[in-house]
Amino acid sequence: MNLTPSPFAPASFPALPAARGLKAASGSRGFYARRGIERDDVFLVTFDPGTTCAGVYTRSLTASADVRWCREALEAGGGKAAALIANSGNSNAFTGPKGVLKNEATLTALAQTLGVAKEQCFLAATGVIGEPLSDPNYVGAFVPDLAGKLGAPDWEKLARAFMTTDTYPKGAGTVASIEGAEVRFAGIAKGSGMIAPNMATMLSYVFTDAAIAPELLQSALKQVADETFNSITVDGDTSTSDTLMVFATGASGMAPVTSEEDLRFRTFTAALKTVCLDLAMQVVKDGEGASKVATITVEDAASPASAKKIACEIANSPLIKTAMAAGDANWGRIVMAVGKAYEPIEADRLAIWFDDVQVARDGARAPDYDEAAASAVFAKAEFAIRVSVGAGTGRATVWTCDLTHGYVDINGAYRT
Amino acid sequence: MNLTPSPFAPASFPALPAARGLKAASGSRGFYARRGIERDDVFLVTFDPGTTCAGVYTRSLTASADVRWCREALEAGGGKAAALIANSGNSNAFTGPKGVLKNEATLTALAQTLGVAKEQCFLAATGVIGEPLSDPNYVGAFVPDLAGKLGAPDWEKLARAFMTTDTYPKGAGTVASIEGAEVRFAGIAKGSGMIAPNMATMLSYVFTDAAIAPELLQSALKQVADETFNSITVDGDTSTSDTLMVFATGASGMAPVTSEEDLRFRTFTAALKTVCLDLAMQVVKDGEGASKVATITVEDAASPASAKKIACEIANSPLIKTAMAAGDANWGRIVMAVGKAYEPIEADRLAIWFDDVQVARDGARAPDYDEAAASAVFAKAEFAIRVSVGAGTGRATVWTCDLTHGYVDINGAYRT
Repeated sequence: MNLTPSPFAPASFPALPAARGLKAASGSRGFYARRGIERDDVFLVTFDPGTTCAGVYTRSLTASADVRWCREALEAGGGKAAALIANSGNSNAFTGPKGVLKNEATLTALAQTLGVAKEQCFLAATGVIGEPLSDPNYVGAFVPDLAGKLGAPDWEKLARAFMTTDTYPKGAGTVASIEGAEVRFAGIAKGSGMIAPNMATMLSYVFTDAAIAPELLQSALKQVADETFNSITVDGDTSTSDTLMVFATGASGMAPVTSEEDLRFRTFTAALKTVCLDLAMQVVKDGEGASKVATITVEDAASPASAKKIACEIANSPLIKTAMAAGDANWGRIVMAVGKAYEPIEADRLAIWFDDVQVARDGARAPDYDEAAASAVFAKAEFAIRVSVGAGTGRATVWTCDLTHGYVDINGAYRT
Repeated sequence: MNLTPSPFAPASFPALPAARGLKAASGSRGFYARRGIERDDVFLVTFDPGTTCAGVYTRSLTASADVRWCREALEAGGGKAAALIANSGNSNAFTGPKGVLKNEATLTALAQTLGVAKEQCFLAATGVIGEPLSDPNYVGAFVPDLAGKLGAPDWEKLARAFMTTDTYPKGAGTVASIEGAEVRFAGIAKGSGMIAPNMATMLSYVFTDAAIAPELLQSALKQVADETFNSITVDGDTSTSDTLMVFATGASGMAPVTSEEDLRFRTFTAALKTVCLDLAMQVVKDGEGASKVATITVEDAASPASAKKIACEIANSPLIKTAMAAGDANWGRIVMAVGKAYEPIEADRLAIWFDDVQVARDGARAPDYDEAAASAVFAKAEFAIRVSVGAGTGRATVWTCDLTHGYVDINGAYRT
């Protein structure tokens, strides 16, 4: 199918910092080529010895074979990474014993070709769920070819190679100065539908030449994921393959971060968050059929978790998302969504703002309500919805897109 | 706006049994007339002395003033009913102190005109949420007029008077023989969007001339609601006004049911369920923009509640609902929805059927999978999705409709 590019698509792929200590290559195993689309569909990244890694994965109980392997490898390998290989075209989820055979074949090829331990190799696959695999070696067979082409990463090609219904490749980077060392971060992501804040919510990888112990890397990633990828939603649906991983090669030359009390841990975490937030915003802006993006903040809730629960009810409501699409400032539907979150609220203190326009106050429409001003906000491509629920001091922000005809079209046509 | 009639709209409104012991009237307070639409927008039903009643209401924490009053009246009045008045055009939800004034004005008018106790009067309002009320007496003012017109109910006119985005009026009835007495049931419902299985999920009233103690009536209604109105979903959104009530006048002449052990209690409950299930199916078939309806059954779950949770994840998934609309038998999305219910499952024993076509078995695509056969099921207007999760003996069925361009259109245009 032909996908209309998101109105938020950037003019060009950003220039990303050249994180040191890794090599990459991408290639085509023919999945898209057979459909007349010229693009790669598999990529390999290899890491210098000593690279640490961390990962957060889908909470789905029908997680893909790749996700289950990554969890196992992270545990067995002690947070060390040698290689990452990802392919699009088939998600290897719900593929039964054959899904495990595919992993085994891929890992064997990586181990033999690169001379690395299997438990330091990470796998990812994205595409249709449940499509059986005719040949378990459909990724492994390409490892020697990819290994022969390894070099400085072409981030845009990598980012394109794992796109599915994405309308643009997603990349973000930053450079942090950590005690004199220039530490580089480069990240890529794919994701467009089946996005919900229950885990990492798509595939995303951040590569950095920072030096950091694996358990600290995991702690930083968990914290960052909650405030970025776990705070975006397109349709409330959670994928079987959602993965966010970070690889730290240590090649920047900085002394390793070994304690959360270390001030450098905070600097590192902040830089990681910068990259992840940028990538997460690109994912929600490429939400299937999206024409608008809203930042939804709930404040004065019983707790931050309660605020997030209420914010997610707003962000996932089809009635609010269709009103967004139509530019109809139908604030009564916000009241509905707050009510069905079943979290503590003081209904008589409920207040709602669209950008700076207050539409509700003290549990009723604001006395100075201005429909034209409210509608003007909903006419914008990006705007904020803020709700105060009067039950405490908890606060949370999530991001969502609208529900348009495009979403219905894309999800009726994808797969076929 | 002009609504395209649901493809499931019946050719005509059904003939309903003439339940005895009540009178009704409907009228226009001008809400739709001002928009050039010829229909009533308010109805009144009065009951013979001794009528008992029961109700289940939205769980929303931003429930309408009318719902809050009904809960209070049911408690204060001991389950006795004298009158019911319902209006469309404004939901009286999130209307602050004025919403309470509207109720007070309506109840005063009912008490004065009919000579009945306020706590035996039940109220309902449906329409846009949060629209302020210019005149609190906007319903009360019509009570004398309606009271002057009371007579044998014109069920179709009543059912039309509280429609909002419904494309057809909904009615269902049955006649049960209870120990020689002919007991009549007549029910009406409205509801099309903002339908989710968290409570009664729309406005619906069942009138019967059975004789039954109020606490038994409540018990029967609760049980029936769980298996009917609380098992349908259109969009996962829950209204601030959802109400299901049953009124039993006793005018059939049967001796009152006074115990749950009484076999007649079961007969009564079964008849009530017949009517509620028929009405609930009419609501889901009139789901905003619906072109297809699916019966979703989850079996072999850890418990009936677990089965229902998984079934609702399937029923509410936008990805599955858009696939239904497109006639794309994308069964991998069922796997996704089962995974994100976070209920106990044995992923390797997962099996899925579309009608009688098995598409998945033992946690993978069925070896004899037949895409043409699966697609033929998804091409039908009504079909069944059955999932076995291999974790126990719990079973539940819910009903849902598809997500079409019509839903996006209707919910972008409603209110304006």
